[in-house]
Amino acid sequence: MSVLAGPLTETLGVTCPIVSAPMAFAAGGALAAAVSRAGGLGLIGGGYGDPAWLEAQFAAAEGTRVGVGFITWSLRKSPSLLTDVLKHRPAAVMLSFGDPRPFAEEIREAGALLVCQCQNLDHVWDAIDVGADVVVAQGAEAGGHGALRGTLSFVPEAADLLAREAPDTHLLAAGGIADGRGLAAARMLGAGGVLVGTRLWASREALVPPRHHGAIVAASGDQTIRTTIADIARQIPWPVGFTARIYRNAFTRAWHGREELLAANVATEGPKYREAFAAGDPEGAAVWFGEAAAMVDRIEPAGDIVRRIAAEAEALLAGSGPG
Amino acid sequence: MSVLAGPLTETLGVTCPIVSAPMAFAAGGALAAAVSRAGGLGLIGGGYGDPAWLEAQFAAAEGTRVGVGFITWSLRKSPSLLTDVLKHRPAAVMLSFGDPRPFAEEIREAGALLVCQCQNLDHVWDAIDVGADVVVAQGAEAGGHGALRGTLSFVPEAADLLAREAPDTHLLAAGGIADGRGLAAARMLGAGGVLVGTRLWASREALVPPRHHGAIVAASGDQTIRTTIADIARQIPWPVGFTARIYRNAFTRAWHGREELLAANVATEGPKYREAFAAGDPEGAAVWFGEAAAMVDRIEPAGDIVRRIAAEAEALLAGSGPG
Repeated sequence: MSVLAGPLTETLGVTCPIVSAPMAFAAGGALAAAVSRAGGLGLIGGGYGDPAWLEAQFAAAEGTRVGVGFITWSLRKSPSLLTDVLKHRPAAVMLSFGDPRPFAEEIREAGALLVCQCQNLDHVWDAIDVGADVVVAQGAEAGGHGALRGTLSFVPEAADLLAREAPDTHLLAAGGIADGRGLAAARMLGAGGVLVGTRLWASREALVPPRHHGAIVAASGDQTIRTTIADIARQIPWPVGFTARIYRNAFTRAWHGREELLAANVATEGPKYREAFAAGDPEGAAVWFGEAAAMVDRIEPAGDIVRRIAAEAEALLAGSGPG
Repeated sequence: MSVLAGPLTETLGVTCPIVSAPMAFAAGGALAAAVSRAGGLGLIGGGYGDPAWLEAQFAAAEGTRVGVGFITWSLRKSPSLLTDVLKHRPAAVMLSFGDPRPFAEEIREAGALLVCQCQNLDHVWDAIDVGADVVVAQGAEAGGHGALRGTLSFVPEAADLLAREAPDTHLLAAGGIADGRGLAAARMLGAGGVLVGTRLWASREALVPPRHHGAIVAASGDQTIRTTIADIARQIPWPVGFTARIYRNAFTRAWHGREELLAANVATEGPKYREAFAAGDPEGAAVWFGEAAAMVDRIEPAGDIVRRIAAEAEALLAGSGPG
């Protein structure tokens, strides 16, 4: 039996403790299904709530056992989306960025695992209060939305809190994890497994424009930044405290640090942003990846990525690391 | 033989791969000597260059084998400090925050190991160029000065670069590491060992006011912030790109986000800051610790901390982490 197997893999119903992040727009049914078929658990990205897109993505998963994730503050504006999605019997529902209380009971009653992604200790307390099955401790290295804590210190602190207050709750680490070294490190820090975003964003199945994929292959881990400018340009009212880590490009050089000016000019800059994003332009709009770009040197099938992360971690955990 | 032993411990001349951070003002000779006596390597904090203080700290080390660390951009203003310190035959000299080129040869000729602390890939390239014996990859979780990369993604990226370009150079991880979980994780990420600041700042031997120690014992990992306000208040001209992680207190609530106002009022605010710091007030001045505060619940002898980190890591690396 794999050294990675244990209570977490049993609860998740997987052979390796790797869950794919429900990345808005990028994590469709094909990606989620590929991750699940490789032995992990794939999550479809519920994003800002487009019912037709979500239906299409569950169809694209072709009956493979997958889950789904929502941006919690956004879901509150259209809660029927959760009810609709639960008809597909997702294996798990992940809630991130907001109070999980309004949705926890409906998720549990539908027989799905409740996964709460947390960015600080208050969020972990919220997850404990609603009886989450799984907590994801997400560090600032992560691509896309998140907050300020670093993965390496937040994971053990979350593990200590759960051990004390909710010892049956499982823990996943997220943020900056792209290979077996990250999974093995997460295990040492007290997590049973990992949530992987950026490395799977850089997969063939992800719904990502080719030139965005070109950007991550060329980028180092230094070439990302946490900022609010993508949300300002898109006029998406994210709650204070959350920023998004994106690729440093012409768009970030133009507007990061000039947020008020961007907001004042959104009538012209907003459409320019949307046009650049729709065209797959990697300079004129946000490109959604995190510091794990450090470990991405090519675009691969998601299943290969999941299997390699697991195999590398098993080998590392069987040894004792480098001298 | 310990699973932690290997080429790195051999090069450092230690039994466990734990180096104490040369924290300005806090890391005196007693702390450095206690770390070395426990099997690691202690570094005296060269800080902003007070020759009399440094002499006193080497005296306090009482002949124990220790090293020293400098703030590189500051050392350039008084390079004779390095020459003076090398007379004490330090085992290692760590350079951080600036170009190591002007000092590398003198350090090597004195028979000391050259340790270069890096915050991004450009810094690692600089360390490779000067033939550093040891690179420290410091993540943003760290207390005190540093930059933006998270430890969990920066360490493996630095490891990959060194493996390709300078395979004999050793690697330490720094930032957010306070217990055996952090050391074991660092090993999985490709580092041979760790540089520990915050956890040793919270030791009996550290030169830290009692009420500052009280603050870290009470604080969670969420209660720190990266900011420039301490340097503005002290009128210490740190280069752009570096910030300092400090405790969130009345001082940060008053001035973080109002940097220009603080600079404009430094004639009155500067003396108030210095007075509060001198008085050991944990609210009126910067309190220098990082996210590893998460794992600090008491002030202990430094030797106990070092031995416990090593023992915990050995146990974790012998097993396979939690399920």
